[in-house]
Amino acid sequence: MAPTQPKGRVLLAYSGGLDTSCILAWLIEQGYEVVCFMADVGQEEDFEAARKKALSVGALKFHLEDMKREFVEQLIYPAVQANCIYEGVYLLGTSLARPVIARGMISIAEKEGCDYVSHGCTGKGNDQVRFELAFYGLKPSIKVIAPWRIPEFYQRFPGRSSLLAYAAEKKIPVVQTASKPWSTDENLFHISYEAGILEDPNTTPPADMWKLTTDPLHAPAEPERLQIEFKTGLPVKVTTAAGQTYTDSVEIFLALNQLARKHGVGRIDIVENRFIGVKSRGCYESPAATILRRAHMDLEGLTLDRNVRALRDQFVTVHLSNILYNGYFFSPEREFVTSCLPASQRTVNGTVRLALYKGNVIVEGRFSDEKLYDEKESSMDELGGFEPTDTSGFIRIESIRLRKWGAANIQKGQAGTEPKDVYGTRV
Amino acid sequence: MAPTQPKGRVLLAYSGGLDTSCILAWLIEQGYEVVCFMADVGQEEDFEAARKKALSVGALKFHLEDMKREFVEQLIYPAVQANCIYEGVYLLGTSLARPVIARGMISIAEKEGCDYVSHGCTGKGNDQVRFELAFYGLKPSIKVIAPWRIPEFYQRFPGRSSLLAYAAEKKIPVVQTASKPWSTDENLFHISYEAGILEDPNTTPPADMWKLTTDPLHAPAEPERLQIEFKTGLPVKVTTAAGQTYTDSVEIFLALNQLARKHGVGRIDIVENRFIGVKSRGCYESPAATILRRAHMDLEGLTLDRNVRALRDQFVTVHLSNILYNGYFFSPEREFVTSCLPASQRTVNGTVRLALYKGNVIVEGRFSDEKLYDEKESSMDELGGFEPTDTSGFIRIESIRLRKWGAANIQKGQAGTEPKDVYGTRV
Amino acid sequence: MAPTQPKGRVLLAYSGGLDTSCILAWLIEQGYEVVCFMADVGQEEDFEAARKKALSVGALKFHLEDMKREFVEQLIYPAVQANCIYEGVYLLGTSLARPVIARGMISIAEKEGCDYVSHGCTGKGNDQVRFELAFYGLKPSIKVIAPWRIPEFYQRFPGRSSLLAYAAEKKIPVVQTASKPWSTDENLFHISYEAGILEDPNTTPPADMWKLTTDPLHAPAEPERLQIEFKTGLPVKVTTAAGQTYTDSVEIFLALNQLARKHGVGRIDIVENRFIGVKSRGCYESPAATILRRAHMDLEGLTLDRNVRALRDQFVTVHLSNILYNGYFFSPEREFVTSCLPASQRTVNGTVRLALYKGNVIVEGRFSDEKLYDEKESSMDELGGFEPTDTSGFIRIESIRLRKWGAANIQKGQAGTEPKDVYGTRV
Amino acid sequence: MAPTQPKGRVLLAYSGGLDTSCILAWLIEQGYEVVCFMADVGQEEDFEAARKKALSVGALKFHLEDMKREFVEQLIYPAVQANCIYEGVYLLGTSLARPVIARGMISIAEKEGCDYVSHGCTGKGNDQVRFELAFYGLKPSIKVIAPWRIPEFYQRFPGRSSLLAYAAEKKIPVVQTASKPWSTDENLFHISYEAGILEDPNTTPPADMWKLTTDPLHAPAEPERLQIEFKTGLPVKVTTAAGQTYTDSVEIFLALNQLARKHGVGRIDIVENRFIGVKSRGCYESPAATILRRAHMDLEGLTLDRNVRALRDQFVTVHLSNILYNGYFFSPEREFVTSCLPASQRTVNGTVRLALYKGNVIVEGRFSDEKLYDEKESSMDELGGFEPTDTSGFIRIESIRLRKWGAANIQKGQAGTEPKDVYGTRV
Repeated sequence: MAPTQPKGRVLLAYSGGLDTSCILAWLIEQGYEVVCFMADVGQEEDFEAARKKALSVGALKFHLEDMKREFVEQLIYPAVQANCIYEGVYLLGTSLARPVIARGMISIAEKEGCDYVSHGCTGKGNDQVRFELAFYGLKPSIKVIAPWRIPEFYQRFPGRSSLLAYAAEKKIPVVQTASKPWSTDENLFHISYEAGILEDPNTTPPADMWKLTTDPLHAPAEPERLQIEFKTGLPVKVTTAAGQTYTDSVEIFLALNQLARKHGVGRIDIVENRFIGVKSRGCYESPAATILRRAHMDLEGLTLDRNVRALRDQFVTVHLSNILYNGYFFSPEREFVTSCLPASQRTVNGTVRLALYKGNVIVEGRFSDEKLYDEKESSMDELGGFEPTDTSGFIRIESIRLRKWGAANIQKGQAGTEPKDVYGTRV
Repeated sequence: MAPTQPKGRVLLAYSGGLDTSCILAWLIEQGYEVVCFMADVGQEEDFEAARKKALSVGALKFHLEDMKREFVEQLIYPAVQANCIYEGVYLLGTSLARPVIARGMISIAEKEGCDYVSHGCTGKGNDQVRFELAFYGLKPSIKVIAPWRIPEFYQRFPGRSSLLAYAAEKKIPVVQTASKPWSTDENLFHISYEAGILEDPNTTPPADMWKLTTDPLHAPAEPERLQIEFKTGLPVKVTTAAGQTYTDSVEIFLALNQLARKHGVGRIDIVENRFIGVKSRGCYESPAATILRRAHMDLEGLTLDRNVRALRDQFVTVHLSNILYNGYFFSPEREFVTSCLPASQRTVNGTVRLALYKGNVIVEGRFSDEKLYDEKESSMDELGGFEPTDTSGFIRIESIRLRKWGAANIQKGQAGTEPKDVYGTRV
Repeated sequence: MAPTQPKGRVLLAYSGGLDTSCILAWLIEQGYEVVCFMADVGQEEDFEAARKKALSVGALKFHLEDMKREFVEQLIYPAVQANCIYEGVYLLGTSLARPVIARGMISIAEKEGCDYVSHGCTGKGNDQVRFELAFYGLKPSIKVIAPWRIPEFYQRFPGRSSLLAYAAEKKIPVVQTASKPWSTDENLFHISYEAGILEDPNTTPPADMWKLTTDPLHAPAEPERLQIEFKTGLPVKVTTAAGQTYTDSVEIFLALNQLARKHGVGRIDIVENRFIGVKSRGCYESPAATILRRAHMDLEGLTLDRNVRALRDQFVTVHLSNILYNGYFFSPEREFVTSCLPASQRTVNGTVRLALYKGNVIVEGRFSDEKLYDEKESSMDELGGFEPTDTSGFIRIESIRLRKWGAANIQKGQAGTEPKDVYGTRV
Repeated sequence: MAPTQPKGRVLLAYSGGLDTSCILAWLIEQGYEVVCFMADVGQEEDFEAARKKALSVGALKFHLEDMKREFVEQLIYPAVQANCIYEGVYLLGTSLARPVIARGMISIAEKEGCDYVSHGCTGKGNDQVRFELAFYGLKPSIKVIAPWRIPEFYQRFPGRSSLLAYAAEKKIPVVQTASKPWSTDENLFHISYEAGILEDPNTTPPADMWKLTTDPLHAPAEPERLQIEFKTGLPVKVTTAAGQTYTDSVEIFLALNQLARKHGVGRIDIVENRFIGVKSRGCYESPAATILRRAHMDLEGLTLDRNVRALRDQFVTVHLSNILYNGYFFSPEREFVTSCLPASQRTVNGTVRLALYKGNVIVEGRFSDEKLYDEKESSMDELGGFEPTDTSGFIRIESIRLRKWGAANIQKGQAGTEPKDVYGTRV
């Protein structure tokens, strides 16, 4: 069974864990040369241990790429500009990391002359789709090996015990940790928890599951204040009450993470709809991202034109969020949708003042040099820019359609004065 | 100046305050017969005092209508079903009350033979538009007197002192309250604060402004748990940790209000865009509504089909929210948009378990008899409903477009592997 | 190889042609009992010959279902109400027939106790998806046999000659027709042409390809007039210039087909995007449907509120068209989207007068008892419903946002007076 | 009544006709200095006669600006790229000219030191709104004089006879033409007809109304062929069957106009919804634009990604069309929406072959070097890019949601097999 000629060279997305170590050994067993790849996207990880393990199992090489800046600047901040959110709740932490990692992999695969890329994602989740669509969009000729979708692999390893047996056989070192009854994915944006005991959507996550943020119950008893300055919708400066300032893009994000974690900001627990059409329960901690979204939206209230905001919400926010969630970052539609981000953020300049307190992000004020807000004009007490009589004309014109419709209803005996006609009663 | 023949009969939306009392006197002075109307939509108010005052100033009659149930059942709960929200933040408390009040007024105007309706709204706000569009949609032939848009009125009363002088002249009793440096609108759904010192969007609202909710800093140190049962997206039962249950629609809402107020839930502070195109700063407390929105959205995660949810979000949520905000409740587009609410909520049946804690509404679990969620199917560890190999086919097909696009990009030298090509850098 | 025990019973969508006859024989050879199903959806076909052939090849039974009325009333007319169209051009003739046929099949499959359904669709087209999604939506437990996606079938029959050889072996009678260099699908709504010589999108279809409609060049030299009456957006009466009237739903459609075919109405030639992401060239003749769409849209101009129309266009038209094209008729989103059709069509009552001439459908006039159009109000010469001065107020208010924006632009030196700033130059 | 000091300087949009000549005289009578402005946007007009008339009536100066190229390149072609259309029928010919004219006026107003701009639009139409919103967006401080909305003007001139009397009094030369029983607006894109006898939407326009295009009945008996080449969605070359080629942007448009006019292409007759909410009947001839829209959409079928197309249709096409129709060209939302046009058109490169025949624009073929279409891949007869078995996986995954939904329906007794459940019957 020893091939004299390797079947080809594979770049494997390696995590250092049991699954991808077994996949590494299995791929070698199948006759491939395997190069291992890890992306540092801010997860807490012993990269050096992973390197040693990969090489000890038989990897030809091990690549560790620091992609944190690319992740923050090219994925996270545009998503902040667009207020991205999936199904009204999920801030897309895993989705945002995947394109960066995939691009890193394709780049290394080209350098190393790999014909194949491989990953350890399961056959039911979103990540397999996100990785592979990104691979294909970047390099259509690449071939993908997804062992958890190959019957000879998944039938051979039906559970953890068979993987452990294989690891023992292949002399793969296994760290004896008490296995958590859920799975996680972590990067500098967030951590996710799913599967295991979380599969019952009525099970409250145990208090010790949450890793990144302080339990709001145990967060500080005093609010902590900070302010965030944005230029064209991008955070450019964070100032804390203690007088610290951060202006580097990555440092801004990390500083916000630290503040948010301390004050218990950014936990959610939801049932979401995966791309493949299955419902799935997930818990997430997205500390800095929760602050940024609140602050950015607030500043848009002050600085962004109403109609641009409404169109952007319907077009960019909705569609970019879906594109990211479903893994279509490297696609013509993503290119199209994001091409109007700059025009949407031209005026989003200013500063938001916030307080963090036991899970709450409280907006305490905001200011800007942009001139779309006008105290005098909005004041009920002053005349500014238009006459009250103008509004009479406005209402007369706006009501033309309604008066026609109302008159026709009355003529037909369908006027809206009867409670029974209103929408509540149709339910 | 005493007309022997009245000019006509007016139904005035009367609040008992200085403005509408002066308007009442002024309308009588202009030669109108005036009937006063108050709607009880749950605001804290001394209705009996208002009645006495109206009659003492010279009102022909005084009508007080209890519209709380109609408000909750016909306006608020459909908005809960639709997850209505304006500009991502505002829950529409004032907007929801206006159609109910307008319908009450038109109904009384018809009974009392009034040719006119009148109100004390300013000439720059949303409420004048909401009231008048509702009047015209319900009864196109009605005539509206909006004194704050009539030059002979607003030029005569340029400020509070001129109103006070007129009140003294007309023997209108004025309650000597320390005037608050902002305006409010209250009903059982919410209270709003705007104008005055709030016109500077960087002024933090003073702690004593907030009237309905406990300051999160002073809210109880222990979370309080409750569960809400929904049928077709409507709340039908609330059960507290103490074992109390509420099943009447109005009682449910009031009980949730009480719980939310105690725990500091439902404050927001925003800059919003009024219908007339002016930006305006507003603060709001919407206690029960904040709980209901969170719970309803959570249950939809468990029980609503993904594609229905996405289409509903884009169609009903966005458009119904705008329709309500802008005052188009009695319009063909509202009739159209809400006609699909029942189909969207057919499966939204189940229960959400919540904890309230210092401003937070925390979802702790949810359950339902609906069968769209399937633990086995979503489990990463089990086969259920489809084979992992199916996903391979799915990804191959989904990537056809992307591979074509990627290959064309490569041919043109525009492949996405270069960081400079991605959207972040275009900003 | 002769199974004593059949593998199960299959209901096969049978067309009478070479492919499905070979599939029938092959299924029997594989050990299945096969019942054949044909739907009469108005295609030109010798159903009796098909019956004989099926039984001679070995079908257990043959079912012919007349589904024309169901097709017209339940699929076609709602699509007319919604102005359904795919990618701005294609009227969805094939897509509309599939749900009807699938429902017929599932109904017969249940009666006949079939565990399987089978069809002869290729593995690259839309129809396989449409059929199977419909089967699964109607009866999730049904099993599908799609021979053109089963390697042992499609590898055995790589081309027409291998099918002919198998037909000879199985004594399947083959009608010797000159095979057309394209494929067709026909029903009473339309005929489609694709594949073969049409695969080059620059090949002009030969004049003799078009089967249903007269070539506009040879259509009558005189226009022919007719009028169509709609109630709630549904055609209820067609009257020809010659004085014939049609009021039955199916007869209306057939009469319009005859008129349109005579005058060369309804040909298109496009490149469309299939659901699976492949571009495909198709030619279509949809005679009656082309008239109905034009007439219905015209009547909506007269009778449908502007805002309802705009929302309906964005919501129902776009999404229902995609749902139909992609085969999601039996889905929660279709149920949701169509639930607001009635509210959208309540006022679409009236009559449109048309002339047909050499491929043109010319609207010559329309009338209705609905009162949304008002000559006096729209007249430039008369005052009606509002004062010109009202419009001044309207414009003042509508321009508040623009004046703020314009002033900010001027301050920044970005005013729109320079031609270089406008959008044309960014391309 | 002779003011020693002029009230200010007005730039008047002058047409040379009776209305604006009377307005010119009246403005002078009111004490203004008046400069006259005409834009040459391709209308058929005796500009020299207009100049003489304006000066003879008392205009201080007369400006004629040739804005045809700006109109074509900056307004018309971007609208072609976006497939702009209002309410599914109207190609926006008048709307597209207004921003160009308004920009010309503001530019001249600044040069001439005018504080005011004035126009002769009626108080019920769209054009007053379009002009004034453009004025305010470009120069918020400009003042507008709209005589037809000033009571002292419109009450003084209630009809044509009073204008004629005033013209006689002011010695304004009046050309004795048989007045047409409708109004028109003409430019190189189109001509519109409305008002007068057209106000009855059931009146068929008389054959001699149509000015630009040959009656299809009298158009040539032979089709005429041409081809149009597009780059990034812009027409860059037109080649006729006779071998003429046009490559200049304006010449391309004029050549297409000539061809379309000869073959009766581009007539429509509709009832549309004006911005102010009034329904209005209009007839239009848009010859070249009708060809370009058909050709451009066809080429997008071949060269534009499916998802980009769908998003562009929903976002750019719909919203840009409304923005243009309602007069919001100089607005933040227009800037936002058009900012993604380039990304949408990057691949729209290729050539469309057309035949014109008696009102029909027939696409006969198209070709492109873009690689999104792939004959081999779309062919039903060949394997290309994916395996038929991949589609099985695709369908299995796509049906997960539907099978869950179908199973739940069956359990509840609401399965879709009963004809009564489908949407047609709910109407």
